[in-house]
Amino acid sequence: MSKPAYQQLCDHYQKLDHFNHLAAICGWDQATMMPSGGNQVRSEAMATLSLQIHELATAPLLAELFDKAQDESLDVEQHASLREMQRHWRQATVLPADLVKAKSLAGSKCEHAWREQRPNNDWEGFEKNWAEVVRLSQQEAQIRAEAAGLSPYDAMLELYEPGVTSSELDTLFSEVKQWLPPLIDQVIDKQASESLIQPTGRFPVAQQKALGLEVMETLQFDFSHGRLDESVHPFCGGVKSDVRLTTRYHDSDFVQSLMGIVHETGHARYEQGLPHHLSGLPVGEARSMGIHESQSLFFEMQLGRSEPFIAMLSKLANKHFVDTPAKVLTQDNFHKLYTRVKKDFIRVDADELTYPAHVILRYEIERDLMNGTLDHRDVPELWDSKMQQYLGLSTKGNFKNGCMQDIHWTDGAFGYFPSYTLGAMYAAQFMAAMKQQLDVEGLVAKGEMTPIFDWLSSNVWEKASLLSTGELVQQATGEKLNARYFQQHLRERYL
Amino acid sequence: MSKPAYQQLCDHYQKLDHFNHLAAICGWDQATMMPSGGNQVRSEAMATLSLQIHELATAPLLAELFDKAQDESLDVEQHASLREMQRHWRQATVLPADLVKAKSLAGSKCEHAWREQRPNNDWEGFEKNWAEVVRLSQQEAQIRAEAAGLSPYDAMLELYEPGVTSSELDTLFSEVKQWLPPLIDQVIDKQASESLIQPTGRFPVAQQKALGLEVMETLQFDFSHGRLDESVHPFCGGVKSDVRLTTRYHDSDFVQSLMGIVHETGHARYEQGLPHHLSGLPVGEARSMGIHESQSLFFEMQLGRSEPFIAMLSKLANKHFVDTPAKVLTQDNFHKLYTRVKKDFIRVDADELTYPAHVILRYEIERDLMNGTLDHRDVPELWDSKMQQYLGLSTKGNFKNGCMQDIHWTDGAFGYFPSYTLGAMYAAQFMAAMKQQLDVEGLVAKGEMTPIFDWLSSNVWEKASLLSTGELVQQATGEKLNARYFQQHLRERYL
Repeated sequence: MSKPAYQQLCDHYQKLDHFNHLAAICGWDQATMMPSGGNQVRSEAMATLSLQIHELATAPLLAELFDKAQDESLDVEQHASLREMQRHWRQATVLPADLVKAKSLAGSKCEHAWREQRPNNDWEGFEKNWAEVVRLSQQEAQIRAEAAGLSPYDAMLELYEPGVTSSELDTLFSEVKQWLPPLIDQVIDKQASESLIQPTGRFPVAQQKALGLEVMETLQFDFSHGRLDESVHPFCGGVKSDVRLTTRYHDSDFVQSLMGIVHETGHARYEQGLPHHLSGLPVGEARSMGIHESQSLFFEMQLGRSEPFIAMLSKLANKHFVDTPAKVLTQDNFHKLYTRVKKDFIRVDADELTYPAHVILRYEIERDLMNGTLDHRDVPELWDSKMQQYLGLSTKGNFKNGCMQDIHWTDGAFGYFPSYTLGAMYAAQFMAAMKQQLDVEGLVAKGEMTPIFDWLSSNVWEKASLLSTGELVQQATGEKLNARYFQQHLRERYL
Repeated sequence: MSKPAYQQLCDHYQKLDHFNHLAAICGWDQATMMPSGGNQVRSEAMATLSLQIHELATAPLLAELFDKAQDESLDVEQHASLREMQRHWRQATVLPADLVKAKSLAGSKCEHAWREQRPNNDWEGFEKNWAEVVRLSQQEAQIRAEAAGLSPYDAMLELYEPGVTSSELDTLFSEVKQWLPPLIDQVIDKQASESLIQPTGRFPVAQQKALGLEVMETLQFDFSHGRLDESVHPFCGGVKSDVRLTTRYHDSDFVQSLMGIVHETGHARYEQGLPHHLSGLPVGEARSMGIHESQSLFFEMQLGRSEPFIAMLSKLANKHFVDTPAKVLTQDNFHKLYTRVKKDFIRVDADELTYPAHVILRYEIERDLMNGTLDHRDVPELWDSKMQQYLGLSTKGNFKNGCMQDIHWTDGAFGYFPSYTLGAMYAAQFMAAMKQQLDVEGLVAKGEMTPIFDWLSSNVWEKASLLSTGELVQQATGEKLNARYFQQHLRERYL
């Protein structure tokens, strides 16, 4: 007698997970350890591995097993597991191989040229390559839309935020657009009269590293299941059982790197906290990009910039940066450094308050691009007008700090941007719900953070992908996602 | 029209090489970087990868392609390439899967128990598990022997030293057995009146590391294609394009670790020097374990213990160990530290002169074990009598420092030991040939080592597996392997 179909599916996805494990570790190695001369052969080995992963993810035998498994008697978890396998499989199989390859090539070509075009502000050169990326992404969106019965942009959203639609986003973001620009102005006005001391001098890497590791310990990062290293672009990689965080140190500044470690530790603890008994199955994975970002932003913004946490950071910084004048490292100065608001062009450098303006701008543009109602050649003009409207800045003729600033669109990753602000909203709503049950600030002040992590664990981490995002948020907070808690949080912190 | 069979074979072996690449990097990571909690899932992922590698290495389609490729018009290199593919394939396919699995399980069980049994000197407990390892290894040897038309032990030798037979080893080693024991006595006698200073105090790891890296640079290790890290058991891992050396530092001693780095750098430069155009094919791999060891021993013994190299090491040690009394780090004391001869039980700690005695003892025992003329229960007694004969030491009742000291037999790796002393002999013969063309000591003294490495490159590294070991040695040195140069080298250094 052969195994039940559901069990065969589990075996198959475990195997796929093993190859993904190898890809994650070798990818981490490539970013952190590999000497430059190893890159060519490594890339070839990784390409062979990708092909193997693709073959397993799209194996035709799966369709048959899904049919059989539907008729087997499954418990609630197994039903959710089967649903996630099917979602995974649909996304992996829906596109013709030709299109996947063509988009990958067009994306690589566009990105490669972009590295030179961006510093040269060369929109005309960029536009020629980008036209193809946009065209192929529209094709992708169209095919996904037809298969899923959604609009093209909503079908792209499904890749990152399953279940979230643009109509929902339109409602959320139009609300934010009403209160955000005046709030930004009000806060900048208020901060104009405040004085803060920018850290200068040297912050030796060894000291920054020791400080970062101590902060991770405070945040209960499990060092028997992970480690911290350095890479040019910080990320949270590796696998659930062995999470590989990276950061980047600058000798002359610690502010960004330190809070970057807090942010990545949020991602890491979500991964480390996913349920072991579902390990290797799609249902055992993190729920979505937005929920993932909600955990990093919970750590970075909700917890990390709270007064008692800032107080602790200031204390630890004083301990490690022995040569830095104490006035730079006071709690008050730390608070000011980490809550300074400034209107600027670059999203990745934006502060908590102006960040959503950047995201909403990109969302509105990429939505219309994918739905075919906006010509890609009109993007710079639209960008300029929205930038003026939301942040009062003009990007006329300034392409490199406008629509050419990011790698996401260059590569054809349309549908990803909303996750950042969804994450910030989820995080605020989680914190509000948590505060109904816990004296969060009091706990942080006493250094007793376990109850905070227990709440996140039982409401988010342990849920993995068992629930839809909507169900997860509803169960954790008692209501569906809304922008109210986010607004409240920003007003309380910045006004 | 489909590709020629030979080309299809190349594609297949390239793919296999890519998976081996992933195994090498993830294996290195497991030994150097991975936190303990990552081990279980990693081991599962590695097991899945091993299965994938096994399937590719034994693919039935290969037999058919070999037949077709025989009839294609191939050049000399391609002929050699095909020969090595077939050798690789035969070794991978000749054993029934049941036997491979049974031996692997028996080996794991024996090794696991051995870790406790060895410190407890528990031969009786060990013998019970080891009986099964020996029995299954004998079966393996028998099957390999029938397929290859060789004696059982010679068939095991083929795995490590293709082309070398026990009749050849008997001749070489019986010669060594005549002059080695009296030479050892003579040298110990001579050294008895010499005084040397054992290094004491602290040698900070950071200083040892900086010293090791500088020595590797002197040896022209290519840091754009490799790196140095730490692991409990030092090894040379990774892949040709990205060689991963490891070492182990002890705060209280640098002597072993420093020369260990020189040794591993020899392995590494062989790998880095293998011809790029054959990369990914079996014929592009290192020739044998013995030739590999000849390169590490050329670096460690021929080059590394030569007077001008010792002088350089002493100078560099003085530069890095700023707190160590200069008298410990003189050239004279370094020379004495690195040429001290002592009869002792443990092979891995043995010096250059007594090492071959350990190897010959093991060779004679494992040969008779595999050929079925020795019962494994008689090993301790035979070990004791040979140890008395070669080194004048008794291991009666001292199993843990006798036949239970190594992991090789515990795991069932019979046939490997001769490679160590073959390597030492090849290295001495290479050096003698090189000295016919180059003023080696003069070059080292001037720090101009490039001609030395060029000789190794064109005579060994660039040859990969294009020639048989016999052809390689003949072409490089003008004669076949013999023990004369080794004897000469030892007499010159130690008398």
